[in-house]
Amino acid sequence: MQFLSDNAAAVHPQVWEALKRADAADTPYDTDAISQRLDDAFSALFGQEVTALWVATGTAANCLALATMVQPHGGVLCHREAHIEVDEGGAPGFYLHGAKLVLADGDHAKLAPATIRAVLDAIRDDVHQVQVHALSLTQASEYGCSYRPAELAALTSLTSERGLKVHMDGARFANAVAFLGCSPAEACGGIDALSFGCVKNGAMNAEAIVFFDPTLAHVARYRRKRAGHLQSKGRYLAAQVLAMLEGDLWLANARAANAAAAEIGGAAGARLLHPVEANEVFLACTAAERHALRAQGFGFYDWGPDAARFVVAWDTREEDARALARAIAAL
Amino acid sequence: MQFLSDNAAAVHPQVWEALKRADAADTPYDTDAISQRLDDAFSALFGQEVTALWVATGTAANCLALATMVQPHGGVLCHREAHIEVDEGGAPGFYLHGAKLVLADGDHAKLAPATIRAVLDAIRDDVHQVQVHALSLTQASEYGCSYRPAELAALTSLTSERGLKVHMDGARFANAVAFLGCSPAEACGGIDALSFGCVKNGAMNAEAIVFFDPTLAHVARYRRKRAGHLQSKGRYLAAQVLAMLEGDLWLANARAANAAAAEIGGAAGARLLHPVEANEVFLACTAAERHALRAQGFGFYDWGPDAARFVVAWDTREEDARALARAIAAL
Amino acid sequence: MQFLSDNAAAVHPQVWEALKRADAADTPYDTDAISQRLDDAFSALFGQEVTALWVATGTAANCLALATMVQPHGGVLCHREAHIEVDEGGAPGFYLHGAKLVLADGDHAKLAPATIRAVLDAIRDDVHQVQVHALSLTQASEYGCSYRPAELAALTSLTSERGLKVHMDGARFANAVAFLGCSPAEACGGIDALSFGCVKNGAMNAEAIVFFDPTLAHVARYRRKRAGHLQSKGRYLAAQVLAMLEGDLWLANARAANAAAAEIGGAAGARLLHPVEANEVFLACTAAERHALRAQGFGFYDWGPDAARFVVAWDTREEDARALARAIAAL
Amino acid sequence: MQFLSDNAAAVHPQVWEALKRADAADTPYDTDAISQRLDDAFSALFGQEVTALWVATGTAANCLALATMVQPHGGVLCHREAHIEVDEGGAPGFYLHGAKLVLADGDHAKLAPATIRAVLDAIRDDVHQVQVHALSLTQASEYGCSYRPAELAALTSLTSERGLKVHMDGARFANAVAFLGCSPAEACGGIDALSFGCVKNGAMNAEAIVFFDPTLAHVARYRRKRAGHLQSKGRYLAAQVLAMLEGDLWLANARAANAAAAEIGGAAGARLLHPVEANEVFLACTAAERHALRAQGFGFYDWGPDAARFVVAWDTREEDARALARAIAAL
Repeated sequence: MQFLSDNAAAVHPQVWEALKRADAADTPYDTDAISQRLDDAFSALFGQEVTALWVATGTAANCLALATMVQPHGGVLCHREAHIEVDEGGAPGFYLHGAKLVLADGDHAKLAPATIRAVLDAIRDDVHQVQVHALSLTQASEYGCSYRPAELAALTSLTSERGLKVHMDGARFANAVAFLGCSPAEACGGIDALSFGCVKNGAMNAEAIVFFDPTLAHVARYRRKRAGHLQSKGRYLAAQVLAMLEGDLWLANARAANAAAAEIGGAAGARLLHPVEANEVFLACTAAERHALRAQGFGFYDWGPDAARFVVAWDTREEDARALARAIAAL
Repeated sequence: MQFLSDNAAAVHPQVWEALKRADAADTPYDTDAISQRLDDAFSALFGQEVTALWVATGTAANCLALATMVQPHGGVLCHREAHIEVDEGGAPGFYLHGAKLVLADGDHAKLAPATIRAVLDAIRDDVHQVQVHALSLTQASEYGCSYRPAELAALTSLTSERGLKVHMDGARFANAVAFLGCSPAEACGGIDALSFGCVKNGAMNAEAIVFFDPTLAHVARYRRKRAGHLQSKGRYLAAQVLAMLEGDLWLANARAANAAAAEIGGAAGARLLHPVEANEVFLACTAAERHALRAQGFGFYDWGPDAARFVVAWDTREEDARALARAIAAL
Repeated sequence: MQFLSDNAAAVHPQVWEALKRADAADTPYDTDAISQRLDDAFSALFGQEVTALWVATGTAANCLALATMVQPHGGVLCHREAHIEVDEGGAPGFYLHGAKLVLADGDHAKLAPATIRAVLDAIRDDVHQVQVHALSLTQASEYGCSYRPAELAALTSLTSERGLKVHMDGARFANAVAFLGCSPAEACGGIDALSFGCVKNGAMNAEAIVFFDPTLAHVARYRRKRAGHLQSKGRYLAAQVLAMLEGDLWLANARAANAAAAEIGGAAGARLLHPVEANEVFLACTAAERHALRAQGFGFYDWGPDAARFVVAWDTREEDARALARAIAAL
Repeated sequence: MQFLSDNAAAVHPQVWEALKRADAADTPYDTDAISQRLDDAFSALFGQEVTALWVATGTAANCLALATMVQPHGGVLCHREAHIEVDEGGAPGFYLHGAKLVLADGDHAKLAPATIRAVLDAIRDDVHQVQVHALSLTQASEYGCSYRPAELAALTSLTSERGLKVHMDGARFANAVAFLGCSPAEACGGIDALSFGCVKNGAMNAEAIVFFDPTLAHVARYRRKRAGHLQSKGRYLAAQVLAMLEGDLWLANARAANAAAAEIGGAAGARLLHPVEANEVFLACTAAERHALRAQGFGFYDWGPDAARFVVAWDTREEDARALARAIAAL
């Protein structure tokens, strides 16, 4: 009954099948027939011409996308708890050649125009201070909260006014779309590039970077190779991504995880630290209560001294989620 | 009847089985039980304590290894036709933060003490010129030629005298060991880190970096994460690498490819541009002859205006190799 | 009556004389006779063998020093208001190849063991988070406050326990030493490298980096050239630095500036935001009051909406400082 | 009687005077009145609107200029003996974040369209090979040879066709203009940025980067600060540069040096390895002959085993040059 993370779950059977079908030898890198289908598949998904590149990890997806938007002397504005700031081992510093992450606060690990504006306005417009070149949002946020289309519109109106590019870390974009009930395009309206997460949602080791601006994609192709991320048997990555899209497997998996998270969240009542708008549940929870839950066989991470985080994966069993919900209700 | 490259071949059935066995959820990154077995497996293979890290591509393996040996203001001495110089899209410049590749010549894309010494001695020992911090060798070389243990001993004696670290690009290390008939340790004696290739030899997307010096491995762990190469479901990479080692699958695959290359090389006679000491055959060959071969259904790359390269993969069919040998003999 | 900054004052007459004496042609870079005297001069000053390099700016001094202590995947712990974080245009990101500045708080822009420990302890010891490799202190701090020798001892005891190198930004080191009344060595005890500021204290464009560890200096020589900071007529920089040391001109200039600042601070009474322990005075001050001061001819910077900063330079006229003191007292 | 280099000569009296005049305190960095005059002065010199930035060294000038033209994943095509390749301690790798120097050959260290085209055409247009983003020329070349306006036109026609930016290393631009007898604009026609050398020609420690494209200058301003090259007392650098331009001191100094070099070259006859088109003379010369010259008191560098290099500085005494000419003629 593990709720530690969604990042080490099994590979979905349909992904396995796609991998096996990709086994027939083809041309290397991304010249194969399967990789060639990515652009069309994502263009259909988003209802506009996009360019999509596969890459093995979310960190690489985020950083390659940002590297197309930010010059080495610039900065990226992101939330203080964003994955790129907290959990990527300094990868943005590497990929962006020393560009700076400029941090902003916001409830539920979400950013809002007012907080962004305050940060930007405090930066003197001279060469002594690093100027922000791009904004990075996380959908759903690090606390499992989703930006509504109107919130995104307000943010991208500001970035457009300030001449900033916008990247979205969508490691759990599927969960956000499933929660919002909107179209994929609405869940990332106005951005320039999206890290479209698959690994946490049933794939083995493939994510997609979706570029809404093809000139950025052109740069990203060179940077991907330069980062050692252009796999010679790229068809196995493309196959995973396409398998996730096929028949909306990505949405089905996310809906299942969200539903279980909602059930757990519903049982948590006033303990909830953040609204459950994806597949994560953050609870106020004493050490004794955490001990009691672990004694019943539940695995999860402490979140500081007084809280716990529960993440539902695509393959979490319904009965496990239900058992956890009951255990939490009974605390 | 493709002899274009070994880099896009199918995945070996034993690797597929290992991947499926890895499907059971485990802890993320490289904390899982399968990843934890890598050090022991490679220590057994090399007959000494080593530390091994999985990584998805050969470019990442080479560059992460070198990044532990070379400071940004230093240089790497390598052959003018080394993969890191010619075919990695500038990845060494990225991973080594602008360190310089210092080029040397040598027949068959191999380096020798005299040529290395000449290059080193031409560098003034002052801050105006980039000082070499490490040597990178390729085993087997870009022209499919293998360093004998005695050649390696002469090279590492020089590097030790000059205080240089040594990296080996072993994208086709298996083919070199199969050709040399020596132990794996003898085929890389005296080096500090080896990029142990699997992808060209039956894996899907996993290579290993083997560190003979554990302090380098410690740095490499941070750099791997920082480069976005620490996959969350790392067990699928570890499983591939272990499958290659198990029952010496790596050697069996390389032997099969080498044998077919030897047969083709044997038919080439005086056309051979380099001795066949791995799984690659380089032939002098006019445009008309290449046309004739292609008309018979053989796929391969031109190698400049007057030559052709044929690469045998682990899964090249014996009859295809035989057919190619006959066709070359008949030219 | 300018109190804007000490960074654009005139060049001291003794520095001019030294510059002129350096005009006789000599060997280039730092091989000339004047540059060769730097190590001895600073070794005498600090009472121990040190290695000193000239460099044109404080930003270069800070970043070159740090680049010898911090690997690209590491971090530098510094105060949230440190010059390297706030005012160097991202230079640390450039020189340290993307290493991260890890920020801590502290009154008067000074760091203390407890705040440092709290920051370090919040960093998980794994590859997902950037590990701190060095600490950077500023003496005197951004708010003109000086670390006492005992404070430094407590800090370097902690860094030594945690295996961190220590850099000191001494853009106003002279002012700190003048205030503390201790020896130069006591004002930077236990650190590994010091940016010894001269430009704000009477030089034209020369600072020194003093390395208490010669192996760091060795690396810095290469990095200085690589950064385009090895001037071919380096003797003109060395001459400036030596002129500052000769007859303790550096201390005399700092004492004069400190005395004037003390007089101004004394007049400020309860308005003082930070104790005056160098040559800067920070006052609580309304917009109307600032307007009144400017109307009397005083130049200075606003420091947020409710404060003002006054900096005394080595060549500030005593009567100007006295006039300012009177004007502040009369507010 | 030193002919070692022009890089450590004395400072010209007119430059000293300008430095002294700059002593009056002004605003910091490049906001002072003297720095503000640079754009106009260079616009007048080149007969078109340009933007000019001061910087302390030629290495910084070259690298900052190139950094505005080349993305980190790109390359710079330059001569195999260019200063940026051979003598800048890897600074281009640092400033360009790992971009690659792509080398071409050419007599007299000059490049020609045919050799450039050959290099460019050998680079496959794919992500595996580094694509060239800019060309860097040296005027006068490393062997003291000058590009004629028609040669430049042929080169920039090619770069324009290939979409490459063009940088010119003009450490000895003055000498080239003096030799060519053309206008400054003709000596660098069609380029995007020029490192306008002053240090070798009478300044203390100031060069100028002249941008013919103002958007590049905008980026360079940020990069200069980020590289620690924005001096707080920048007026002293601006003053040097303006002093060099005033009354065409830059040309007068170069003409004097060129004339002396021509006299030495004229005495050398068939020994001359390169035509004397600036202030450098390269002679075929045995070890015994070099010994004989040194015994007569002449200082110079060996240039490999069978040659010697003589450089005339702005302040070389005429009688010394004449003595050297006689001594060479007498060999």
